[in-house]
Amino acid sequence: MSNKKIYTAAVLVIGNEILSGRTKDKNATWLAEELNGLGIRLREIRVVPDVEDKIADAVNALRSAFDYVFTTGGIGPTHDDITAASIAKAFGVGLEQNQEALAILKSYYDGRGEVVTKERAKMTYLPAGAELIPNPVSGAPGARVGNVYIMAGVPSIMQGMFDAFKDTLVGGDVLQSVTVDFNHPESALAHDLAELQKLYSDIDIGSYPKNLDGKWHVSIVIRGTDETRLKELETELLALNAHLSKTAAVRKAD
Amino acid sequence: MSNKKIYTAAVLVIGNEILSGRTKDKNATWLAEELNGLGIRLREIRVVPDVEDKIADAVNALRSAFDYVFTTGGIGPTHDDITAASIAKAFGVGLEQNQEALAILKSYYDGRGEVVTKERAKMTYLPAGAELIPNPVSGAPGARVGNVYIMAGVPSIMQGMFDAFKDTLVGGDVLQSVTVDFNHPESALAHDLAELQKLYSDIDIGSYPKNLDGKWHVSIVIRGTDETRLKELETELLALNAHLSKTAAVRKAD
Repeated sequence: MSNKKIYTAAVLVIGNEILSGRTKDKNATWLAEELNGLGIRLREIRVVPDVEDKIADAVNALRSAFDYVFTTGGIGPTHDDITAASIAKAFGVGLEQNQEALAILKSYYDGRGEVVTKERAKMTYLPAGAELIPNPVSGAPGARVGNVYIMAGVPSIMQGMFDAFKDTLVGGDVLQSVTVDFNHPESALAHDLAELQKLYSDIDIGSYPKNLDGKWHVSIVIRGTDETRLKELETELLALNAHLSKTAAVRKAD
Repeated sequence: MSNKKIYTAAVLVIGNEILSGRTKDKNATWLAEELNGLGIRLREIRVVPDVEDKIADAVNALRSAFDYVFTTGGIGPTHDDITAASIAKAFGVGLEQNQEALAILKSYYDGRGEVVTKERAKMTYLPAGAELIPNPVSGAPGARVGNVYIMAGVPSIMQGMFDAFKDTLVGGDVLQSVTVDFNHPESALAHDLAELQKLYSDIDIGSYPKNLDGKWHVSIVIRGTDETRLKELETELLALNAHLSKTAAVRKAD
């Protein structure tokens, strides 16, 4: 077993449109999978409204608890885009115009025969000390301050930003996962699962029931960093499945 | 304008499967819409792993900050279902077997020719003082403790539970929303929107950009409780849209 450091992350989704149910967030799930591939474990997701104190409080809670914090949303030119100001407040710093961001924005609007209005220029004010995250899709810049990565809310832009810096993220061992499906209700294997969890304390065993055509099934998902151990546990689960199916068949025949 | 109380809520999603990206949460969005219809505003969503302290800490933070907390997930019979124990810890109480829940579970398994095993019986242990939330789909009971509603993670079950108690929830004025779509990038209207937000401080103006076929559009969503005020602002936005389209057409013709 590895004693290497476990790297953790939180995603902070900023936006009234998620909390009203208007927009379904797709960024957290996408980031979860990307981070997993980098050996970084997503440990918390929070969704907060476009309110400065709520954003600042959440950023401070999350950046002290996890190695990385990724925020999405609120980096555009409109009055409800207050992420940079809120994160500056969280860090106790002011906003400063980033000249690199301004040059990029000028070039973006020059190409469209338009000018950088005051509202557009607002996007170039980042928390003091922030490092620019390039935006390959639109002019609005992202930024990194300490362990907090400020990204767009529009999924295609967010993904482009993440791809631009993901090689700089440091992760640990990658969690592998194996799924074993049972055609039984989860309560039929609950006792055995609990015993297996004790024997395989280095592996996270999750039990996810689903109802198909009125009958309960369950997916057992095992996650760990040691492939040999995962293989051993998978073998035990397959044996348990065979045993339960045989018992059920005998019961049916009685 | 109404001075009535604004009722607020948080949703706490419990489960490693959401944080790993394996399962896309559908419950928070569904609850957001239901709560809005009841005049209750969803102000925060948190997703935490199957870890007792994390669940207890989140429950305590949310139940003191909002009128209602709705939890989803972790109420089944397996070792990773620890919601009831974690919430009991948050309230500083023990777990007690709920006799009504046990009777329901017995009847559920009697009908299937099966018995209530120790693992199945675990589901009937609820935080002391909890009130049962009936589960019309499967045997696993939900529960209410104070302002915290403990529900299933499987969407169909969660929805059945919510429907069973939603008439008991007290809400305020319902937020109405109107959307005006602009065929312009949001930065083109950012200045006017900010001015309108000052004039209509009782209305929440949200700006949601989207890229269609390489061209930026924006949906302006206005939300408030006073239909007359919403109608006034909608008229202003439609006039702004007409003005911008005319300006753009003139610019194109130059």
